[in-house]
Amino acid sequence: MRFFVPTDIYVEKDCVKNHAQNLLSVGMRALIMTGHKSAAANGSLNDVTEVLDAGKAMYRVFNEVEENPSTDTLRKAVQAAREFKADFIIGIGGGSAIDAAKAVALLLLNPQLDADDLHQAPSRRLGHAPVVAVPTTCGTGSETTPVAIITNHKIGLKKSIPHVIFPALALVDGKYLASASKQLIVNTAVDALSHMVESVLNVKSNAFNRMFPEYGLKLWGECKDALLTNGDVDASLYEKLMLTSTIAGMSIAHTSTSLPHGMSYDLTLHEGVPHGPAVGFFLAAYTEVCAKFVPDDVEKVFSLLGVKDIGEFTAMLQSLIGTYSVTRKMRDKFAAAMKVNRSKLDLVPGKITAEDIDFIYEKSLAIRP
Amino acid sequence: MRFFVPTDIYVEKDCVKNHAQNLLSVGMRALIMTGHKSAAANGSLNDVTEVLDAGKAMYRVFNEVEENPSTDTLRKAVQAAREFKADFIIGIGGGSAIDAAKAVALLLLNPQLDADDLHQAPSRRLGHAPVVAVPTTCGTGSETTPVAIITNHKIGLKKSIPHVIFPALALVDGKYLASASKQLIVNTAVDALSHMVESVLNVKSNAFNRMFPEYGLKLWGECKDALLTNGDVDASLYEKLMLTSTIAGMSIAHTSTSLPHGMSYDLTLHEGVPHGPAVGFFLAAYTEVCAKFVPDDVEKVFSLLGVKDIGEFTAMLQSLIGTYSVTRKMRDKFAAAMKVNRSKLDLVPGKITAEDIDFIYEKSLAIRP
Repeated sequence: MRFFVPTDIYVEKDCVKNHAQNLLSVGMRALIMTGHKSAAANGSLNDVTEVLDAGKAMYRVFNEVEENPSTDTLRKAVQAAREFKADFIIGIGGGSAIDAAKAVALLLLNPQLDADDLHQAPSRRLGHAPVVAVPTTCGTGSETTPVAIITNHKIGLKKSIPHVIFPALALVDGKYLASASKQLIVNTAVDALSHMVESVLNVKSNAFNRMFPEYGLKLWGECKDALLTNGDVDASLYEKLMLTSTIAGMSIAHTSTSLPHGMSYDLTLHEGVPHGPAVGFFLAAYTEVCAKFVPDDVEKVFSLLGVKDIGEFTAMLQSLIGTYSVTRKMRDKFAAAMKVNRSKLDLVPGKITAEDIDFIYEKSLAIRP
Repeated sequence: MRFFVPTDIYVEKDCVKNHAQNLLSVGMRALIMTGHKSAAANGSLNDVTEVLDAGKAMYRVFNEVEENPSTDTLRKAVQAAREFKADFIIGIGGGSAIDAAKAVALLLLNPQLDADDLHQAPSRRLGHAPVVAVPTTCGTGSETTPVAIITNHKIGLKKSIPHVIFPALALVDGKYLASASKQLIVNTAVDALSHMVESVLNVKSNAFNRMFPEYGLKLWGECKDALLTNGDVDASLYEKLMLTSTIAGMSIAHTSTSLPHGMSYDLTLHEGVPHGPAVGFFLAAYTEVCAKFVPDDVEKVFSLLGVKDIGEFTAMLQSLIGTYSVTRKMRDKFAAAMKVNRSKLDLVPGKITAEDIDFIYEKSLAIRP
């Protein structure tokens, strides 16, 4: 049983400003990686640049990170980092920005590696420039995992890269949720929920790492009603949602995600479904299958969340993210690919069959005529 | 709210052997610090030297660490480390060995510092050689805290030193408890319990770091009956006891200990009481005082442990460690010193009075005629 999360994590209002010295001690020339708009809109980019300006640190902003960051974007970003002589990378945004920052931090110190090589297993562990993560959504957990999910369009692959890149510092401030839409908060909170459920219903779950999801699922349960109710989420819950997401990240840092995440990638890649719902569509049926293998663990998840049974859990998820339909051809294609995806199947806490996988797809995705 | 535990921690049977590569990657010339006997008796020293021999790493054993390691011993140890040209320090044993290893790791890289200077606040953060911790008791938690408690006999002081020294690696194997006496297991388990109770009943307790004691107190509660029953603790519980102790260490890594630990140091220094009971004697009365300030937290502690109320909690501790008496003069002297010990008093989650402190001493220590 292992515990390892070397990231220095602060979760609190104004933590970028409060821990300016921690940020400045990471490096003196930052490439800031973020998306086109949201980091500028929610104030996070401004918070970071104010601290860098006050500390006389240099920075360059690369704001071209798209949802599901591609190897092509990373290649462009690492070139910018090299031209600027960056000595650390700051990722501001959701999982896309932080994952991209991690990948660029690795590429920066390994010029022999092209972005398209990132998915290949390295022969030895590679170093990386230090990363600072400033999440602005309550889902990814990337600020506290060693994982980066990268898309290579040339080979039609969205997958985690086989490198270990923990951020040196994570600055987690709930106030950045204030400008997010209700649906974005819900979508990313469903991602965090999936991280914890997939961490418990996982062959790698043990008495040590279970500490994280057991604590986080209770926190998520305390936010549940606010997510389900119409209208905006009260600002008093922002910090709890962010904390839950960070703890959910600590969960999967130890177990990895399991089938729902594995199944979601095709749905995002080929159908453009945002990550949170793409995962969430599969979560109830996966839980139902796992009830055959680890019934006590499934009961524990329900009791921590405060839901009665699989019916209530399924209804809750549908109420949050709705349902989705694909063509029968697509669904069969997805299922066929998953049946040979050993890296995810091996994480299921029981002997999962081809029928189980078909069941999950049938239950999770409706058929579009 | 901060989380920071950069130590790579393994808790499992045979983990020294299982993670030999992790151990060997820390350094190539180890000073092994341990006590006179127990590390040799319980097999831990042998496990470590076998791995070092197989990996062709060099080592020298310094087995003179006493209970409550003194600055004089540290001076001797760091000289041995220098002569041997050690590049890392391995602490094997209880808190004394691991704390001493941390202090020597600091002294080794800071020749300007004498061991007697360790309690003085440094003007800047000092570096230290890497430390590997192999605990053999289920109490200290030192394997996952940045703290070292050192005794300076010249000025009659037992206190934590103001330096931050996290082990790089902790290898936690329950099997080393097999050769420990029942009372040693009980004493150190009471120390772990105190770490968690003092972490919850603490002004620094928050929604993030509470994850550790809330999880660990439940585990401790599951071991409770085995500790209270006559006869040996079943071997199947060793790993849970060790895991609980490690999680208790993660608790105080974020909050520090509070009054019971502060009060214990005099009892150990002037009366020779072992650390676990010295802390445990004060725990129930401290909890009773805190019930005035944070009644819900006290209730939570009881409910996680599975004890009914303060009466049952007090009786449980007495059954585990008995009672202790001092002269009235000594008790008054201890109380007077505690009333001005701001570093501990400021951690109490409420406005504690001189009367409260007198109450704790009266309730905790009987008077010896």
